[in-house]
Amino acid sequence: LVEHLQARGKPVYRIHGPQPVLVCPDDHDLDPQELQTWPGVRRVIPVRHAFQLAARDYRPEGTQIRVGEVLIGGEEPVLIAGPCAVESRSQLLETAYAVREAGAHMLRAGAFKPRTSPYSFQGLGWEGLELLAEVRAETGLPVVTEVMAPEEIPLVAEVADVLQIGARNMQNFSLLKAAGRQPKPVLLKRGMSATIEEWLLAAEYIMAYGNFQVILCERGIRTFERMTRNTLDLNAVPVVKRLSHLPVLVDPSHGTGDAAYVIPMARAAIAAGADGLITEVHIRPQEAWSDGRQSLTPEAFARMVREVRAVARALRELEGDSHRA
Amino acid sequence: LVEHLQARGKPVYRIHGPQPVLVCPDDHDLDPQELQTWPGVRRVIPVRHAFQLAARDYRPEGTQIRVGEVLIGGEEPVLIAGPCAVESRSQLLETAYAVREAGAHMLRAGAFKPRTSPYSFQGLGWEGLELLAEVRAETGLPVVTEVMAPEEIPLVAEVADVLQIGARNMQNFSLLKAAGRQPKPVLLKRGMSATIEEWLLAAEYIMAYGNFQVILCERGIRTFERMTRNTLDLNAVPVVKRLSHLPVLVDPSHGTGDAAYVIPMARAAIAAGADGLITEVHIRPQEAWSDGRQSLTPEAFARMVREVRAVARALRELEGDSHRA
Amino acid sequence: LVEHLQARGKPVYRIHGPQPVLVCPDDHDLDPQELQTWPGVRRVIPVRHAFQLAARDYRPEGTQIRVGEVLIGGEEPVLIAGPCAVESRSQLLETAYAVREAGAHMLRAGAFKPRTSPYSFQGLGWEGLELLAEVRAETGLPVVTEVMAPEEIPLVAEVADVLQIGARNMQNFSLLKAAGRQPKPVLLKRGMSATIEEWLLAAEYIMAYGNFQVILCERGIRTFERMTRNTLDLNAVPVVKRLSHLPVLVDPSHGTGDAAYVIPMARAAIAAGADGLITEVHIRPQEAWSDGRQSLTPEAFARMVREVRAVARALRELEGDSHRA
Amino acid sequence: LVEHLQARGKPVYRIHGPQPVLVCPDDHDLDPQELQTWPGVRRVIPVRHAFQLAARDYRPEGTQIRVGEVLIGGEEPVLIAGPCAVESRSQLLETAYAVREAGAHMLRAGAFKPRTSPYSFQGLGWEGLELLAEVRAETGLPVVTEVMAPEEIPLVAEVADVLQIGARNMQNFSLLKAAGRQPKPVLLKRGMSATIEEWLLAAEYIMAYGNFQVILCERGIRTFERMTRNTLDLNAVPVVKRLSHLPVLVDPSHGTGDAAYVIPMARAAIAAGADGLITEVHIRPQEAWSDGRQSLTPEAFARMVREVRAVARALRELEGDSHRA
Repeated sequence: LVEHLQARGKPVYRIHGPQPVLVCPDDHDLDPQELQTWPGVRRVIPVRHAFQLAARDYRPEGTQIRVGEVLIGGEEPVLIAGPCAVESRSQLLETAYAVREAGAHMLRAGAFKPRTSPYSFQGLGWEGLELLAEVRAETGLPVVTEVMAPEEIPLVAEVADVLQIGARNMQNFSLLKAAGRQPKPVLLKRGMSATIEEWLLAAEYIMAYGNFQVILCERGIRTFERMTRNTLDLNAVPVVKRLSHLPVLVDPSHGTGDAAYVIPMARAAIAAGADGLITEVHIRPQEAWSDGRQSLTPEAFARMVREVRAVARALRELEGDSHRA
Repeated sequence: LVEHLQARGKPVYRIHGPQPVLVCPDDHDLDPQELQTWPGVRRVIPVRHAFQLAARDYRPEGTQIRVGEVLIGGEEPVLIAGPCAVESRSQLLETAYAVREAGAHMLRAGAFKPRTSPYSFQGLGWEGLELLAEVRAETGLPVVTEVMAPEEIPLVAEVADVLQIGARNMQNFSLLKAAGRQPKPVLLKRGMSATIEEWLLAAEYIMAYGNFQVILCERGIRTFERMTRNTLDLNAVPVVKRLSHLPVLVDPSHGTGDAAYVIPMARAAIAAGADGLITEVHIRPQEAWSDGRQSLTPEAFARMVREVRAVARALRELEGDSHRA
Repeated sequence: LVEHLQARGKPVYRIHGPQPVLVCPDDHDLDPQELQTWPGVRRVIPVRHAFQLAARDYRPEGTQIRVGEVLIGGEEPVLIAGPCAVESRSQLLETAYAVREAGAHMLRAGAFKPRTSPYSFQGLGWEGLELLAEVRAETGLPVVTEVMAPEEIPLVAEVADVLQIGARNMQNFSLLKAAGRQPKPVLLKRGMSATIEEWLLAAEYIMAYGNFQVILCERGIRTFERMTRNTLDLNAVPVVKRLSHLPVLVDPSHGTGDAAYVIPMARAAIAAGADGLITEVHIRPQEAWSDGRQSLTPEAFARMVREVRAVARALRELEGDSHRA
Repeated sequence: LVEHLQARGKPVYRIHGPQPVLVCPDDHDLDPQELQTWPGVRRVIPVRHAFQLAARDYRPEGTQIRVGEVLIGGEEPVLIAGPCAVESRSQLLETAYAVREAGAHMLRAGAFKPRTSPYSFQGLGWEGLELLAEVRAETGLPVVTEVMAPEEIPLVAEVADVLQIGARNMQNFSLLKAAGRQPKPVLLKRGMSATIEEWLLAAEYIMAYGNFQVILCERGIRTFERMTRNTLDLNAVPVVKRLSHLPVLVDPSHGTGDAAYVIPMARAAIAAGADGLITEVHIRPQEAWSDGRQSLTPEAFARMVREVRAVARALRELEGDSHRA
């Protein structure tokens, strides 16, 4: 079949997903009925929408992802917290205990940090990963941490419960494909200037390569506004909920860039229908090696948890599910 | 004094506000102590921040604006609702009763519509204003409606309880000055690509010309995202709350452009700390002459009110005022 | 006819242009042939494109506008130069002589200045206008100056050869309509976040109200980039040339915000096919009351003229008109 | 020294560039004079500017990069042309001969294509690379082609004379570091929403890892404008020329997304001071497997070359170097 299509001048593209898929452009010169007769062809599907596997239609009931005892995409908002970067054993351990105490379900912290300048602190690397493993074992908190290159995945996946793909790598297609070929859930941040469609197509890459456990994360987009580091696009939450079955988290820390705005925007994200939050917390923000300005103290984080839960509870208590858009 | 400053080559600028103010640029060559000695000079104040009268420092306790029995900037979120445009007596009256029934405190509807194309429906004009006056009298709902030119203000102000200045006119400085010279409260929408600082400076114009009753309204900014008409910038809510004492509303209708997203974003706006909402409601959205796609039905609006109140109540019930950023 | 349409529930809109036009929305329920039979109806035209009068089809050969001896939209790029604001008689006169000497065809200078802050210098107003009249008489240079409100037009038009509508007023529809009802050419700057379509529709407003002498002016749009005041969108030049018959100028001063970048971008604008440039020039930029940072000295302006003419000449010399996109 | 700094709680970062560099944050608690006394320390330099090696100061005379007989950053604009993607031997060979004939100095074509959708044609991969090698040998044209992952670099570098890093990978830091550790020149496209500073810092990554042969390429940024695929930011050309010594090219094909606008913007880019152009050319654009809409025919490309050269010549002929900003 491949040869036949190529002979007709068609670039044929194979998706090596769980169900092998052949994709090729159709300029109204292919006959679906004829294609159906080829051996090995189960179904001929015209690709009308840009994204297929990520589309709401594919799983109208929504996707839930289980990480240890944590359920992402369920009733209760999932709270992920921790420092921007692993800095030391004590910093990580103290923060982990503090956020667990305050109600966090998972720990976040970067061992590999994507930094705009080559002269900025790039993370502790493998050493940071070991510290993450220790703190995970000690606190029992599942861990989310970033991978920046395909070759890092196997080792990072030994420690991480969820692999994070950062905003700058949202269209790093070799990374997306590699993340699709392994089994750990992937938290996919929206690129700084990615449209929602491009973001869902990035998720589609991971899914097309075999991994359906994708968690989306809105973290702010780039606009002309200068009072905040980014513009948190909460519109994206109901839009994604309508278009896709994937769970969506919000990062109010990067989304605002200022600890003073994190709590109101965390409340707003949950009110908009987000499935959870990923928040930067540091035991001593003013001493943080990176992103201190947008990090909450553990006390502020505890307040955030209370307020966010109050919002979630209030909406749950309203009749039925009428609060979902 | 003016002549003295001009003789020294200074452009002197008079603010005809409630307290007459002279402003002139200081290139480190003016002596405040000397200026203080001139007759009629009460105080010499170096203008350090871009905005003075709109700044939080000016009234740390926050501004509350009373419109009839409605209090804007108080504990309870203010709900303003109504059609994009006045279309007919029955349309307006039916909608007004429906939104009042559902819990709206004020009615919105445009008689003069700013439209991108000269061939689009431009509003019923003075006829629409008369209909607004009738419906206001009949339902008792205070009315918010847009003014587009200084010369329209006197007549519009006879009907309107609050004058709206639209996004496209946020930097129409003659309109801002005229709105500052009259006593009715002004609802000032953020421009499509206005920074928060420019928006507060537009408010400063109105205040510098004598009217301190300014209500800010976030309605979405222009970005690259195409799934929504605008990107509702809820970050602006806590930012404005920190920088200014003025109340801030949110318009989730223009902020999303799609009725399907209005309710979640209305909840999010209140959760972020907004003082209220202005929402487009039409008795039959699919027949609306403009903006039908983003208009709620009265039933959907009633649901919005319930959900928004649940969020507001939940946050109020939390200890103290800790939910304000 | 109007009553007939209204009886059928149609909002009818009259364009009081040179040829009276009635516009009304058609939901596939109007019969063009029937409408054609009404008395007084010359032609029934379905409005397919958003803009009609501004569209290239309307005048495929392009529009040329004559201002005194200057031809805008002809072979030679038109050079307009002068200070941001009228500051004093000597400043204006000196600059006018200097730019005329360097090759400018017209003088620009603001008497009424739209300023973001109410405390910034707002222009000399009517006094500035008188100085403009004097300098115009003395130097023979035609004058472009900004109008900010409909009521200013009659007096400004007594002095100005071309009325400028600034970026902030691009969608001040009462101003556009007023500019359409008077005979002086209008220089219409693109709004900071206006799409090209919205800009052409703003031109359409002026034209629909009777004034076909509209000169477009690209002056930079608002983006996330912070090294320049605005992002000069030169793509707009060939796009406008394809879509519209109106002449288009470029303002490299606001488009970059920095004198260091004005000359290269002036060259680029002409190379892209612009019909001319409007450039800020000040005899002593470091002493300018506004926009000094982006103002050229007369010497730099003279260099700009030489380079811009070299580009224009080189392209003209290429065979035929092949250099026009 | 490293241990000493770490003992003081400093994250120390090594730059493995040609001259080994240690970088660490200084919170005003380090004494440069004391550090200078450590063995092996040649010089202690406070990092004041974000970028060091890419800064104009580092090489005030500008960087020239030689690729075979082609000089990038010299007097003559460098013209790189070819199809978006390698599609077949004949397509590539025909196009290569056609663009060489028209005046192109180098051939561009993608074997690995970054595509937004996993179902779009992803390039012929290694097969495409072989075709590139053949056509390079046959036509003598040096080749620019994209690398998308660090592990592809060794094989791609066997064929490519210049490695392209695409807009989506501008902040793929493992790719930047890998490109820095190999000797082939790198063409670094600006990210879709990258500030100029971030772009120069991405170049700084490559240089800090040892490769000083970096060619910048502006290809349009993402804005709200919808008439063009991207907004070509030509302001970036003089800005980069002032801030950096690196050569800068412009891609008018992606920068506009429409063949109708490519030639005027190519002229504009050269007039703005760009060192050359990279343009998509296809023998039969309407049959192209990707980006056909923005591809020039060979005839149109030949016209572009004539016009671009006319602009460059005209500016060179002006006295001295006065045309450089």
